[in-house]
Amino acid sequence: MTLPRIAVDAMGGDEGVQTMISGAALARRRHDKFKFLLVGDEPRIKAALDAHPQMRGASEILHCDDVVSGDEKPTAALRRAKTTSMGLAVNAVKQGHAGAAVSAGNTGALMAMSKLSLRTIKGIDRPALAALMPSLGENDVIMLDLGANTECDARNLVQFAIMGAAYSRIVTGREAPRVRLLNIGTEETKGTEQLQEATQRLRAATGLALSFDGFIEADKINRGFCDVVVTDGFSGNIALKAIEGAARFVTDLLRNAFTSSLRSKIGFLVSRPATELLKHHLDPNNHNGAVFLGLNGVVVKSHGSANATGVANAVTVAARLLEEDLTHRISADLAELGETRLRSSARANAAGKVDREAEAEADTSEGQGA
Amino acid sequence: MTLPRIAVDAMGGDEGVQTMISGAALARRRHDKFKFLLVGDEPRIKAALDAHPQMRGASEILHCDDVVSGDEKPTAALRRAKTTSMGLAVNAVKQGHAGAAVSAGNTGALMAMSKLSLRTIKGIDRPALAALMPSLGENDVIMLDLGANTECDARNLVQFAIMGAAYSRIVTGREAPRVRLLNIGTEETKGTEQLQEATQRLRAATGLALSFDGFIEADKINRGFCDVVVTDGFSGNIALKAIEGAARFVTDLLRNAFTSSLRSKIGFLVSRPATELLKHHLDPNNHNGAVFLGLNGVVVKSHGSANATGVANAVTVAARLLEEDLTHRISADLAELGETRLRSSARANAAGKVDREAEAEADTSEGQGA
Repeated sequence: MTLPRIAVDAMGGDEGVQTMISGAALARRRHDKFKFLLVGDEPRIKAALDAHPQMRGASEILHCDDVVSGDEKPTAALRRAKTTSMGLAVNAVKQGHAGAAVSAGNTGALMAMSKLSLRTIKGIDRPALAALMPSLGENDVIMLDLGANTECDARNLVQFAIMGAAYSRIVTGREAPRVRLLNIGTEETKGTEQLQEATQRLRAATGLALSFDGFIEADKINRGFCDVVVTDGFSGNIALKAIEGAARFVTDLLRNAFTSSLRSKIGFLVSRPATELLKHHLDPNNHNGAVFLGLNGVVVKSHGSANATGVANAVTVAARLLEEDLTHRISADLAELGETRLRSSARANAAGKVDREAEAEADTSEGQGA
Repeated sequence: MTLPRIAVDAMGGDEGVQTMISGAALARRRHDKFKFLLVGDEPRIKAALDAHPQMRGASEILHCDDVVSGDEKPTAALRRAKTTSMGLAVNAVKQGHAGAAVSAGNTGALMAMSKLSLRTIKGIDRPALAALMPSLGENDVIMLDLGANTECDARNLVQFAIMGAAYSRIVTGREAPRVRLLNIGTEETKGTEQLQEATQRLRAATGLALSFDGFIEADKINRGFCDVVVTDGFSGNIALKAIEGAARFVTDLLRNAFTSSLRSKIGFLVSRPATELLKHHLDPNNHNGAVFLGLNGVVVKSHGSANATGVANAVTVAARLLEEDLTHRISADLAELGETRLRSSARANAAGKVDREAEAEADTSEGQGA
């Protein structure tokens, strides 16, 4: 098949046009079928393309002067959806001029523009931001939502589970990815009402292409026990950033330890290949490319400070989701859920639901394990 | 002054009576004025004391047969508050037979028993679980709540800020500890209504012995930018466990990297003092002892899997909070808040509050930065 083009917001991100273009060129060297629509300041894009002649042949430039700034409010950015590089990149997906958009700009603005322009898939109430994270298991783990929705109800969480599983099937090749809900304990009575209701719904649903394994605590996210971690955007953002911060904290301590004496400096030099391996594994550029799931089109957020390797990874994520037709996969799974919901709600009504809720409430109001 | 006794639940925790007694004995070797009330199975406690003759002289034993199990529901445990080692240790504080209680048992049960028996300080609606965490700054950072309250309103968060600051003053010696609210962004419009209202209240309050610096994101918790991180129990538990999990993940990767080749093994041996330093810094036993703040009495939770060093640290935390009279400090600060509240609410009414709220809502509903 011919892969549709990827629209790249060349102006977003802290690292500038050159990094975005170099990143896209790097992705293209890995997969030479990629074609691009580069959106932004034409003279600067052309200058950046001088270093990548083959990339130039695979690219079209869509000029614009306006750029969404990093600290701009989504409401303000939305008003300039038709004139900014970010807005035009997203719009190219809507118009069918590109199959996917990649931007390293303001996350809130990108979310708002994507939602308004592409709309959510039928059956999805809210899109979610999903990212791949390293794990000790065989494959990366997907976590969502990472901040698109501060508060979520049970219905949102169930939809996130389905979208995350669809993404995970592409990444892992598993028929039924192992899905868990992030919670502060694994007992059924732990956590919020929303989590308990989402658990009931996921347990009751049959025929979904996922295996629901209950709750997972935040210290187990990277252990490889599951493929998809589902959470509301507030907790997901806290968990993601806590993990990033702790990983940096440990590596900072390690650096301090290694430079604390001549002996440890020598040890560091000798073991450099090992520490380089660690650095590679933890480098956020190697896991760059968060995806807005649930939209009629693929939109990928590259980290604002990503280098060319990071941008190349984000572009590759976009291309892969296009090739594997993520959007249609999610729609198919939702249709499946629609059928099972009729069966499962009949069952839930039959069960003695009230007793369990009363018990759960008594326990959670008294205290949660730390 | 004579330090009141510390009641130790000798039966809680995964490591058994010997670890609890050895831990208490270790704390006593550091500070020989400590005296203990050891609660649990007398023959086993006596056997454990055989190895610590000096400790024996400083201890009284309160025998009981019943123990709260680790997976027991708080509601079930509460019914046996008068017969279990945990319940009797807490009750000893209530009766004035001890100044503080330490337990390594079921967190939810300990919270429920402490709350019911000791009641909250006047002016505190709900107690919170607080712990010290390592940081790159000069002192440890205190985070609360870590799971005692799944959902919190603005009033709870303000109370947590005051309690956390009182604890931090003891630990850091700072007159006005730097307090921040955990959020998914630092802009004023980010996060939940509760966080925004708590911010307004903390900014408006004057005369509190703390310096409120706004929001902090989860990747900055350990950077040393603040002394107290305030959050609801759900997010706090997620953040704490995510940090613990990520730290273990990185050290696991490091171990794998170091054993991946002969060269890296040699490097590891040479740099062992450096890695031992790292291990020491990250060992949870060195930060053991979470405190239930806001009760009429000091209750400290030792981690279930803590070793004797960990238990000794938890006992030392309890003793320190007793010596420094944490409970009265919190009461004094609350009295101060009562006075400022009158002034600040008058001011908040005068300000154009409605505009800001409408703007905040528009922005947060659209998307949050990841």
